[in-house]
Amino acid sequence: MTNSSRLALHEYKNGILSGDRVILARAITLMESALDEDQRLAGEVLDAVISYSGNSIRLGITGAPGVGKSTFIESFGKSLTIEGKKVAVLTIDPTSQLTGGSILGDKTRMAELARDAQAFIRPSPAGHTLGGVAAHTRESILLCEAAGFDTIIVETVGTGQSEVTVKNMVDFFLLLMQPGSGDELQGIKKGIVEMADAVVVTKADGDHLQKARASQADFQHALHLARAKPSGWTPKVLISSSIEHRGLKEIAAMLQQFKTQLSSSGYFHDNRRNQDLAWFKDHFYYLLSLDPKKFMQVAEAENKLEELIHAGRLSPRRAAFELLQSYHDAIKKRL
Amino acid sequence: MTNSSRLALHEYKNGILSGDRVILARAITLMESALDEDQRLAGEVLDAVISYSGNSIRLGITGAPGVGKSTFIESFGKSLTIEGKKVAVLTIDPTSQLTGGSILGDKTRMAELARDAQAFIRPSPAGHTLGGVAAHTRESILLCEAAGFDTIIVETVGTGQSEVTVKNMVDFFLLLMQPGSGDELQGIKKGIVEMADAVVVTKADGDHLQKARASQADFQHALHLARAKPSGWTPKVLISSSIEHRGLKEIAAMLQQFKTQLSSSGYFHDNRRNQDLAWFKDHFYYLLSLDPKKFMQVAEAENKLEELIHAGRLSPRRAAFELLQSYHDAIKKRL
Repeated sequence: MTNSSRLALHEYKNGILSGDRVILARAITLMESALDEDQRLAGEVLDAVISYSGNSIRLGITGAPGVGKSTFIESFGKSLTIEGKKVAVLTIDPTSQLTGGSILGDKTRMAELARDAQAFIRPSPAGHTLGGVAAHTRESILLCEAAGFDTIIVETVGTGQSEVTVKNMVDFFLLLMQPGSGDELQGIKKGIVEMADAVVVTKADGDHLQKARASQADFQHALHLARAKPSGWTPKVLISSSIEHRGLKEIAAMLQQFKTQLSSSGYFHDNRRNQDLAWFKDHFYYLLSLDPKKFMQVAEAENKLEELIHAGRLSPRRAAFELLQSYHDAIKKRL
Repeated sequence: MTNSSRLALHEYKNGILSGDRVILARAITLMESALDEDQRLAGEVLDAVISYSGNSIRLGITGAPGVGKSTFIESFGKSLTIEGKKVAVLTIDPTSQLTGGSILGDKTRMAELARDAQAFIRPSPAGHTLGGVAAHTRESILLCEAAGFDTIIVETVGTGQSEVTVKNMVDFFLLLMQPGSGDELQGIKKGIVEMADAVVVTKADGDHLQKARASQADFQHALHLARAKPSGWTPKVLISSSIEHRGLKEIAAMLQQFKTQLSSSGYFHDNRRNQDLAWFKDHFYYLLSLDPKKFMQVAEAENKLEELIHAGRLSPRRAAFELLQSYHDAIKKRL
């Protein structure tokens, strides 16, 4: 994140296009930097490789804590790399900003996939807003694609807000569920179930296999009641076992079928373009939120207003109006 | 929300200070309006009554769907109004913006409390961002206090993000749990349990009473392992039954004890001032997010940039930079 760690534009470009995972990781770090100079270079790097991106399937995966997300992603990812695919795993973890800790941030997760030369794993940085994490994850997707990764997995934890964010940056949205009854889909927020292109019942092994098969039928029934997708895709319910390697090929085949079907209808392409428009707006509001901090005059006004609030001499609402005015004044003064 | 429904400043002020619930409701609607003219008047109304606010306890209540939140709030609220208290219930419901539907928005909830002349119930409007809902809820708290409500209940649904928002605007944060084992606190996000000043085990009636008492002991044990509060308050675990009216007086007594203890230490006052600072920042970013839309020139630039993105001729990231530049230009041009 410091100046000394910055490479030249052509070094980033050549490194990414040759699939160098170390340079890919450094490019993502550059995207995440809030420094003005880094931001400018980050934009140049992105523009230099963007025409090489896009040749992939982007897969969002969510599920409640304990459902076995990282175990599933590791075994599914391995099943893909064995077939010659290149798999990138990116995480969006809004919990990291809430508690200082992180549900998804454990570095020992997916240790086997992390050692796989055909895989690339990148946890989201802690301390960012969801908007910031989302902006950087979109950029990371494009960089990974330019580096030759053809299966991009964006993982999130089931808290509602982040699912919508992820849905808006992937082609296919997968909900992991433990074996249970169709009623349990009621416990998941309705919007999340409606977003799912498939539900995968995890832990379908040993004594749980029969229960998982029953859940598959239950969930299938429950999903049939959901609205038809604008994409024309009918949501599927599959079972999987990371221990017994069950169902992983079926999931890969489903993704292939999805891409083939929606590419021929044109939806696949249209959806990505609409996501670009959403990205545009998200990134604008992200930049906007950072902008006032770049003016010394605004920082000084903020300190003074805080003192007045703390002394009980100014309402927070009025203070906010005055700070916005100070931001306008600062922009006007700058040539 | 239209001009014709707007009252004069003194009508709002007199209505609120005399405890008129209809005018109170209209004042809150005024706060929620995004119209510039309404916003100006809203600020004046707030400033006109703010010195009459503050004499209350602000109570945040959360819990997973199905835990019996509205049943609890109704029976707890009634137990307070019978004692002569005036109770306002405000909701923060981020689910309404995710799905178009709303977990908390059902108008038939708390029908009995809604008819109580000593109570005031205000659901959050759908379609706002969490930031917007939060800003308006803070304003609503002050208006309700100026109208003589001494117990302000801010209700939210257990999704993580909104709990942090509510915690930052209340004095006391209450987590409702169903009877179950201490292990179940693990299923609640760690940050939410750590924020709780008390856990109340609901449905402690009939056959469930023994189970609820066992849960009380379990949760008490689990909470003892949690970090000490900066407030010096030790989190409590109580049981309640809305059907058998059990535990409601104990909860009211706990709130009184909390206010007495933390007022004498100075924490109660300091915490509210720190919350004012957080409100200031939140409201500034809310105003900032609305600001670009107020310039015709920015709206026109946005349309052009969207066309370029849709044609695949501009990256969303670069387009966002250019829109920010257009916003700066628009501010500079305005006198």
